[in-house]
Amino acid sequence: MASQHQSGGRSPELRHDPVTNRWVIFSPARAKRPTDFKSKNPQNPNPNNNSSCPFCIGNEHECAPEIFRVPPDLNDPNWKLRVIENLYPALSRNLECPCEEKQGMEFPGRVIGGFGFHDVVIENPVHSVQLSDMEPREIGEVFLAYKKRIQQILSVQSIKYVQQNKLSYGLSFSCLSITTVFAFHLKVFKNHGVSAGASMSHSHSQILALPVIPSSVSARLEGMKEYFEKTGKCSLCEVRAKELLIDESSHFISIAPFAATFPFEIWIIPRVHSSHFHELDFEKMVDLGGLLKLMLRKISLQLNNPPFNFMIQTSPVQVKESESCYTHWFLQIVPQLSGVGGFEIGTGCYINPVFPEDAAKVMREVNLPMQD
Amino acid sequence: MASQHQSGGRSPELRHDPVTNRWVIFSPARAKRPTDFKSKNPQNPNPNNNSSCPFCIGNEHECAPEIFRVPPDLNDPNWKLRVIENLYPALSRNLECPCEEKQGMEFPGRVIGGFGFHDVVIENPVHSVQLSDMEPREIGEVFLAYKKRIQQILSVQSIKYVQQNKLSYGLSFSCLSITTVFAFHLKVFKNHGVSAGASMSHSHSQILALPVIPSSVSARLEGMKEYFEKTGKCSLCEVRAKELLIDESSHFISIAPFAATFPFEIWIIPRVHSSHFHELDFEKMVDLGGLLKLMLRKISLQLNNPPFNFMIQTSPVQVKESESCYTHWFLQIVPQLSGVGGFEIGTGCYINPVFPEDAAKVMREVNLPMQD
Repeated sequence: MASQHQSGGRSPELRHDPVTNRWVIFSPARAKRPTDFKSKNPQNPNPNNNSSCPFCIGNEHECAPEIFRVPPDLNDPNWKLRVIENLYPALSRNLECPCEEKQGMEFPGRVIGGFGFHDVVIENPVHSVQLSDMEPREIGEVFLAYKKRIQQILSVQSIKYVQQNKLSYGLSFSCLSITTVFAFHLKVFKNHGVSAGASMSHSHSQILALPVIPSSVSARLEGMKEYFEKTGKCSLCEVRAKELLIDESSHFISIAPFAATFPFEIWIIPRVHSSHFHELDFEKMVDLGGLLKLMLRKISLQLNNPPFNFMIQTSPVQVKESESCYTHWFLQIVPQLSGVGGFEIGTGCYINPVFPEDAAKVMREVNLPMQD
Repeated sequence: MASQHQSGGRSPELRHDPVTNRWVIFSPARAKRPTDFKSKNPQNPNPNNNSSCPFCIGNEHECAPEIFRVPPDLNDPNWKLRVIENLYPALSRNLECPCEEKQGMEFPGRVIGGFGFHDVVIENPVHSVQLSDMEPREIGEVFLAYKKRIQQILSVQSIKYVQQNKLSYGLSFSCLSITTVFAFHLKVFKNHGVSAGASMSHSHSQILALPVIPSSVSARLEGMKEYFEKTGKCSLCEVRAKELLIDESSHFISIAPFAATFPFEIWIIPRVHSSHFHELDFEKMVDLGGLLKLMLRKISLQLNNPPFNFMIQTSPVQVKESESCYTHWFLQIVPQLSGVGGFEIGTGCYINPVFPEDAAKVMREVNLPMQD
């Protein structure tokens, strides 16, 4: 299982990927061997079965309001998953839709009201069950809940209004003096482990609907557009490198991205071009569930059950016909192995000590035990 | 000293600053009172005087090669500061200047050799002395060492070559098939504390000379340019808001930025427009040293001596005449108060629980004890 590449023998490189649209320094001088990377802060893989939290079955009254459950019958206490409001939402669903910009202080900045949605998907009624313990079909049902909630949010009247009044990026409401892009963007993400940002150990994920496009998303769209304009091709349809491939399923591949920002970062990419996660059907969701489960189990075994984040990198809600040819959604998994943040904040540069082809080889060769 | 603003009563806001060119969510629902923010991971303010590390006076032989010392006499063992090579450099000074792009794998990305400089400034010969313990004049001498080393790097033959052959951003070497911006960029930064990325507790800072412009810097240049094109003004010359002001000195102001990415983030901005840190003269460096010392002492007292990063946000080496009117350097200080990273990586959005005007008020009102 040891990598044949001893990173120590390599020279540093700078790599740039059109999808992230950023330069990353690959610097083996600081690295251990790729197989030596382990979390120093492993998560308890199975939190005590007896412990109880507001997300546990029977404690529904301790939670913020429920949006829906599966199965949908509210009187059925044996739910399999629940979608609820976040008790501490980053944005407020009760504010006015941000159709105008507030006046800032004597500072050359812009400000809008924090209107948006911030929901929680409780993936399983049982405290000790992690996503990677669940069957592919059950994980598929979690994805189906994401899709249903995304579609609900897109049908909210004020968001429809935002969409109808914004014909394309760059066009803004006429009531604004400065061009503002009010395009709703939906983030679906999971934080596993305290240092990955999770405040609850009960397995859950979050959906955040924002009235602006985060800068990392704009950068991605720009990078993918630029690549398309140069080559006529979608940058994610073009990923073929065997050295970077980890595993594959009927409808997806999993890779270590060429210019991975973080060590052992993994992307799961649909084989067929598609802009939005919520275009997926249930059969493909179950297939994705199987590949995600495999990746999470490999990460847990190889890297000592680290905290991790995963994010569905989907496209902003409205992509024009001309944009849909280069926007391709994917699922990004980031294990948290070192004090990410410090050096990056300090330098503004991302430094990754593990070459992605080495990470891919290690992850390809993980020997998983049979599951009970 | 308690803030009159109870953040809990506020609605969330989204703010955008031309300087960072990103949206930040200000979400008080998750917040404690601004005065309740304390580091849970305080740094030892005075590491044991008796402990010894490679950076301590007398242990020079344990370090990577010295570049220069102050005073400059190599035979004088009583140095006040030393600039040395980083023993584990992120980039290699021995590689060829990256005048051509390597061929990538079957992946739509770009790769160049990791040529660059990565140096360390040992700020003081004594292990237990932190930067904030030093006199303004001594801190000014640290800045002078930054300036001297920046000027040395800019005079290296291969970097001169890069500069002479690149007339402006967007123009590239003729030997490249894809447009690549080989503009050298210099980062000067300090990581204080392990979780801020510092591997040595002996007070030091780092200089990283990169052959590319990091994306955070490109985004800043773009945002400042856009603001200038709209208003004819430099976005940092325009900062006047009293609510955001913390302190001031003869040549600098310190503020909580309007759309601070991190809680209690502070910028020190030169009053007079200037693109590059290395244009500063020694008198202003001493003045800056005094204001930086004040900010670090306030951070330490108010926030329980947190790990922190500071970065000199200077402009890329070559700015054209037309660009110099909107590029304005500043010093950014980021205390590390919470597990920064997890939520941000998970969402791609920055969420700050402290409104900058509240942070500014708290920092303005810190009552510092007289120093010995």
